[in-house]
Amino acid sequence: MYRLCCSTLVGFLLLFSVALVLAADAPLSPATEECVDCHSSVHPGIVADWKRSRHAAISPKAAMQVQGLSLKISSKKVPGQVLNTSVGCAECHTLRGDAHKDTFEHNGYQIHMVVSPDDCAVCHAVEREQYSRNIMSAAYRNLSGNPLYNDLERTILGKSEIKEGKLHFAPADPMTRADGCYYCHGTRLEVTGTEQRDTDVGELVFPVLKGWPNQGVGRVNTDGSRGACSACHTRHHFSIETARKPYTCKECHAGPDVPAYKVYATSKHGNIFSAMEGQWNFDHVPWSAGQDFTAPTCAVCHISLVVGSDGEVISKRTHQMNDRLGGRIFGLIYAHAQPKSPDTTIIRNKSGLPLPTDLDGTPASAFLISDQEAAVRRARLERTCRACHGTSWVKGHFARLDNTIAATNAQVRTATQLMQTIWQKSYVQGVANGGSMFDEYIERRWSDAWLFYANNTRFAAAMAGGGDYGVFEDGRYHLNKSIMELNDWLQARETMRR
Amino acid sequence: MYRLCCSTLVGFLLLFSVALVLAADAPLSPATEECVDCHSSVHPGIVADWKRSRHAAISPKAAMQVQGLSLKISSKKVPGQVLNTSVGCAECHTLRGDAHKDTFEHNGYQIHMVVSPDDCAVCHAVEREQYSRNIMSAAYRNLSGNPLYNDLERTILGKSEIKEGKLHFAPADPMTRADGCYYCHGTRLEVTGTEQRDTDVGELVFPVLKGWPNQGVGRVNTDGSRGACSACHTRHHFSIETARKPYTCKECHAGPDVPAYKVYATSKHGNIFSAMEGQWNFDHVPWSAGQDFTAPTCAVCHISLVVGSDGEVISKRTHQMNDRLGGRIFGLIYAHAQPKSPDTTIIRNKSGLPLPTDLDGTPASAFLISDQEAAVRRARLERTCRACHGTSWVKGHFARLDNTIAATNAQVRTATQLMQTIWQKSYVQGVANGGSMFDEYIERRWSDAWLFYANNTRFAAAMAGGGDYGVFEDGRYHLNKSIMELNDWLQARETMRR
Amino acid sequence: MYRLCCSTLVGFLLLFSVALVLAADAPLSPATEECVDCHSSVHPGIVADWKRSRHAAISPKAAMQVQGLSLKISSKKVPGQVLNTSVGCAECHTLRGDAHKDTFEHNGYQIHMVVSPDDCAVCHAVEREQYSRNIMSAAYRNLSGNPLYNDLERTILGKSEIKEGKLHFAPADPMTRADGCYYCHGTRLEVTGTEQRDTDVGELVFPVLKGWPNQGVGRVNTDGSRGACSACHTRHHFSIETARKPYTCKECHAGPDVPAYKVYATSKHGNIFSAMEGQWNFDHVPWSAGQDFTAPTCAVCHISLVVGSDGEVISKRTHQMNDRLGGRIFGLIYAHAQPKSPDTTIIRNKSGLPLPTDLDGTPASAFLISDQEAAVRRARLERTCRACHGTSWVKGHFARLDNTIAATNAQVRTATQLMQTIWQKSYVQGVANGGSMFDEYIERRWSDAWLFYANNTRFAAAMAGGGDYGVFEDGRYHLNKSIMELNDWLQARETMRR
Repeated sequence: MYRLCCSTLVGFLLLFSVALVLAADAPLSPATEECVDCHSSVHPGIVADWKRSRHAAISPKAAMQVQGLSLKISSKKVPGQVLNTSVGCAECHTLRGDAHKDTFEHNGYQIHMVVSPDDCAVCHAVEREQYSRNIMSAAYRNLSGNPLYNDLERTILGKSEIKEGKLHFAPADPMTRADGCYYCHGTRLEVTGTEQRDTDVGELVFPVLKGWPNQGVGRVNTDGSRGACSACHTRHHFSIETARKPYTCKECHAGPDVPAYKVYATSKHGNIFSAMEGQWNFDHVPWSAGQDFTAPTCAVCHISLVVGSDGEVISKRTHQMNDRLGGRIFGLIYAHAQPKSPDTTIIRNKSGLPLPTDLDGTPASAFLISDQEAAVRRARLERTCRACHGTSWVKGHFARLDNTIAATNAQVRTATQLMQTIWQKSYVQGVANGGSMFDEYIERRWSDAWLFYANNTRFAAAMAGGGDYGVFEDGRYHLNKSIMELNDWLQARETMRR
Repeated sequence: MYRLCCSTLVGFLLLFSVALVLAADAPLSPATEECVDCHSSVHPGIVADWKRSRHAAISPKAAMQVQGLSLKISSKKVPGQVLNTSVGCAECHTLRGDAHKDTFEHNGYQIHMVVSPDDCAVCHAVEREQYSRNIMSAAYRNLSGNPLYNDLERTILGKSEIKEGKLHFAPADPMTRADGCYYCHGTRLEVTGTEQRDTDVGELVFPVLKGWPNQGVGRVNTDGSRGACSACHTRHHFSIETARKPYTCKECHAGPDVPAYKVYATSKHGNIFSAMEGQWNFDHVPWSAGQDFTAPTCAVCHISLVVGSDGEVISKRTHQMNDRLGGRIFGLIYAHAQPKSPDTTIIRNKSGLPLPTDLDGTPASAFLISDQEAAVRRARLERTCRACHGTSWVKGHFARLDNTIAATNAQVRTATQLMQTIWQKSYVQGVANGGSMFDEYIERRWSDAWLFYANNTRFAAAMAGGGDYGVFEDGRYHLNKSIMELNDWLQARETMRR
Repeated sequence: MYRLCCSTLVGFLLLFSVALVLAADAPLSPATEECVDCHSSVHPGIVADWKRSRHAAISPKAAMQVQGLSLKISSKKVPGQVLNTSVGCAECHTLRGDAHKDTFEHNGYQIHMVVSPDDCAVCHAVEREQYSRNIMSAAYRNLSGNPLYNDLERTILGKSEIKEGKLHFAPADPMTRADGCYYCHGTRLEVTGTEQRDTDVGELVFPVLKGWPNQGVGRVNTDGSRGACSACHTRHHFSIETARKPYTCKECHAGPDVPAYKVYATSKHGNIFSAMEGQWNFDHVPWSAGQDFTAPTCAVCHISLVVGSDGEVISKRTHQMNDRLGGRIFGLIYAHAQPKSPDTTIIRNKSGLPLPTDLDGTPASAFLISDQEAAVRRARLERTCRACHGTSWVKGHFARLDNTIAATNAQVRTATQLMQTIWQKSYVQGVANGGSMFDEYIERRWSDAWLFYANNTRFAAAMAGGGDYGVFEDGRYHLNKSIMELNDWLQARETMRR
């Protein structure tokens, strides 16, 4: 406590000068001044939020003069029209106007509503390039362009109907898709026309955007680019603090399919974060282990530029993310190595299905990274562990994770064997007899096993997430229960047939 | 960060003077001084908490002199006995003593234990009046006085027994009811006698209160009034900060029936709140969008007096709450328009049941607000959205919500059709053949569909709550799974009968 | 807010002097200096974390001079080698070297990796002694040494296999056990050999530890002692603030079996904590109710030394914990009185099973504390309640809890009767006909009833945890649903047999 107070006092003096430097350096462009004139009254929240941002406080030119690891602009050259002023409304929303199909005339300016990763790349080129290798950037296509996942989607989002005493699921309507899976995966934005609106400042014409609003990680933008930086760098403060806190990741990683946040929040790391976050520094770049934070958040392990107390780099910044992940513990239907390409629609398993593993667990190895590459990626991740843990600890942890991946894959194998018996005996229709793998109750209990319970168990192992998510909270207790139910259901059907 | 520090320093100077003003203005009444003399030792937590409150710091007389939107006392006239001192123990616990059946003699004073909304209304008349139109104020009666909900309650809280090989549920005992549904709905408080207790200051007599403790929103008080202001304005600090944070709403809106908190905490709004709440101001009245907070909490959208950066009112304060809600997305059994009266026991659907919709989805329109009124209420809510979102965003969001309400209602229709078939074939007893709608396993899977999964999906849509609560976390994945199970169960029974 | 700021300013002056006192008093030992020289670069997170600790700031000799309730060292005598310096790396990791099987030569020092409760007891003897009476200290043996729990463990963690059309579960491998149940219960640490590693400073030899890493509460250490103080007093800051916040308890009490954190976070107490924790003082010893905190955390009720505003002791510090708990609401399979001995493997119920209750609900009374002792323990707990609640409130609360314990036990009785019928009719194999109680689907629905739903309901009652955890969120709605499913399953089997 006393350390916090002392540093706060020192902070006053230091930060006053920082504030002066920043404030002095960032005149608004005339265009942005015009925007702010109206919008500070029409959209006070947006303008106030932006005014709090580093974008408002410093020009790219000044920001590019930062030396060493604190440099935040990765583009070597920034065009003149956004170089010398603060990065305001007009700078982003008029940038690359010809590329955006939603560009429209607005009080004398050519504005586009949706700012895309390619716009951000004008200053942050390296991050945009890294992100294009992130599987998340392809999240729209990876779901919408995979016939098998489409079928799963139909049985989740689709409209149920009873026809001639039988239950059917029709594909979901576009708005349900946007409200469901594509909330996180990202929608495809399309300009479908224009409309005139009666605003406070008179009649104005705006484009009509299908798929809007959306800030999904794989959003297909009006300039054809993929992704939404604002998914994590929340508009219009674009605060590094927000992006570095695990609440941001939670928005899409809350559910039992990818229970990252829940498991983290229950782990010792999450415990320390929750208890101590008020005393940490979430703004420093680079981010110093032990100094700025005392336990990792999601960003520490998978994204941020992290240094030790002597300033030595522990981890380079990445927006690819899976270059700091050894494997993919998300089961489809088994855990497997990371795909080589962010586009997973190209994957075919030995049965010809667009799945990274086969129903018997065989990985579609031609489409997945090699063991050697997986080891390199895990070694990158381990460097962060070692800031606070000895070698015995780290080795023991990952040996246990590997064991849990193998053990949960084996359990999924048992569940799948039972499911295959049920399909073979035609108690329900599977793919082989012309049906769906996902549209019957007992098939859903099978998908519960791999999509929820095996995943929870692996995430708990991966994050040292405590016994509960590995056991009683969607963990092994439930994984074996789903196997028991598959068996019980099968036995009951056998009995009925006799 | 630097802004925070600067404002903190400025805050010191400003707040010192505020503190002096407040402190100077609030002498304790002689009665309260007597209370505090004993109770600061007997109940140190209560007294310390109150001393931190605005009630301790300012007299109603001084508080009434506040001009403009910062005024917190809404009564035009406050009686002399509570006007000139701090609002202390005696001021509230002796107020309107004749009206309270729990009033008792205590060291020379006529004290009542339970302070009611009608007591608070002495200073806060407008809020009390608004709250009487809030459906929550009738929460006790709306549950206990509705025979159909009573039957559901019996199958949830009731004691199970096996008689002659059959499973029965008896109505729950009063303490189970108080510990279960009525914890939030509120209990009916009744004085059942008095008891003598040996206290630190000798033998004293106290009333015995049935239904106590309770702070449910629809509590029936000893003066006949309904509600408990302390449900949200937690005693004895009665902090506006606490009431404005979503943790307060969570106390009753945590479960899968009304998953408001969980969905909020996973939404982008909740993400920003969690990451930034330490930098927000939760005390300012009025509450300035963009200045005091940068994302809405529950209170921002549904209750608080919110202004823009120019001080213009965006939303008036309300304690009715559903005047800033377009519809009721809580399915009974379908989502429907808000009821006209807070007393929902008067509602009858076309089948004569006390339900706002029929089993086929027809709304009990005579008892529900009109489309026009619903549009007015939604427009009030949208004003808050527009502080940070453009018109395209807001229109797109609500179009998607309307679509999701329709789609989930359709799914509930399918689930209900399957349930009705099961009843018609007498596989289990429904209302038509003299049974209950809620006391068999498969009936509970039907109630899961509308009470949990359809509700989760709608709350996720309403709050842009992320894909998970709309899909894998009690969302559409589970809604369709419950429909599949109803169908599977029916098929199995058909097979067995053959 | 203004109070916070004022106290912060006063805090500056006060804490500067405290900082000087602390800083002046704690020279590093030469051995620790050597450790820090390398490890501040090799493990910057560990060293930085420790430097923030009280251990780094004060020597035991100085700490022992603290008078009154603020004294943190409970040992009357501390050996010379750790008396006069800060409590650094070498002080703990070389302490009692002969007792530790993992002691190894490391750059001229005899180091052991795992610091045990017996090491901590050199300064904190009383806490260690109390903890040895805490049932958690025996958590490894209580699970691994109980044949019935072993069988449950096998069906949860065990590997499933289908042999000749039948489903079997084999006991889990050691790493799955360590990753599952024993993450919280604690592993047994064993030195299995040594290994040479190529480190930054050349080749070094380290012991190989089976069961490592682990910080479970009942860990069996290399010196034979049981427990891990670091389970709650997180290394290497060992911050009292962390231990006092409920996030620490959450690590093992998150799941539906012991849903303590979830229920707390949803209760009014949790609501106040979440809204106000930033304004509380988590460092003060003793901890003053109303001054330092305004609502209890887990530690307030069950562990910490708590005083009133006049400094009078409300609760003495305990690390036994169940001396401030009236009963054990965790059902095995019914809620029951606290066991007399922390070693629960000695318990036998009237059927001879190692369970604290019988299948019909009869408690194994000879092994459980008496009603009188339970009343004494509850009275200790109630002293904390009374800091903020009147007698009527406290009596009403506990009467309701007792009623809920009885009511949920009765529901578990019904579930068990149905299960026993299923066993008697040999629809699945139970213990009586040579099978397991836990390896069939319908048996798992029975264990759901008592392990999850009855427990949730009781925790909600115990912590005034709101209606949801007692009703719709793993509460009574689901308890009765599981009973309905047991009945439905039984009826279906009866129909099939006909």
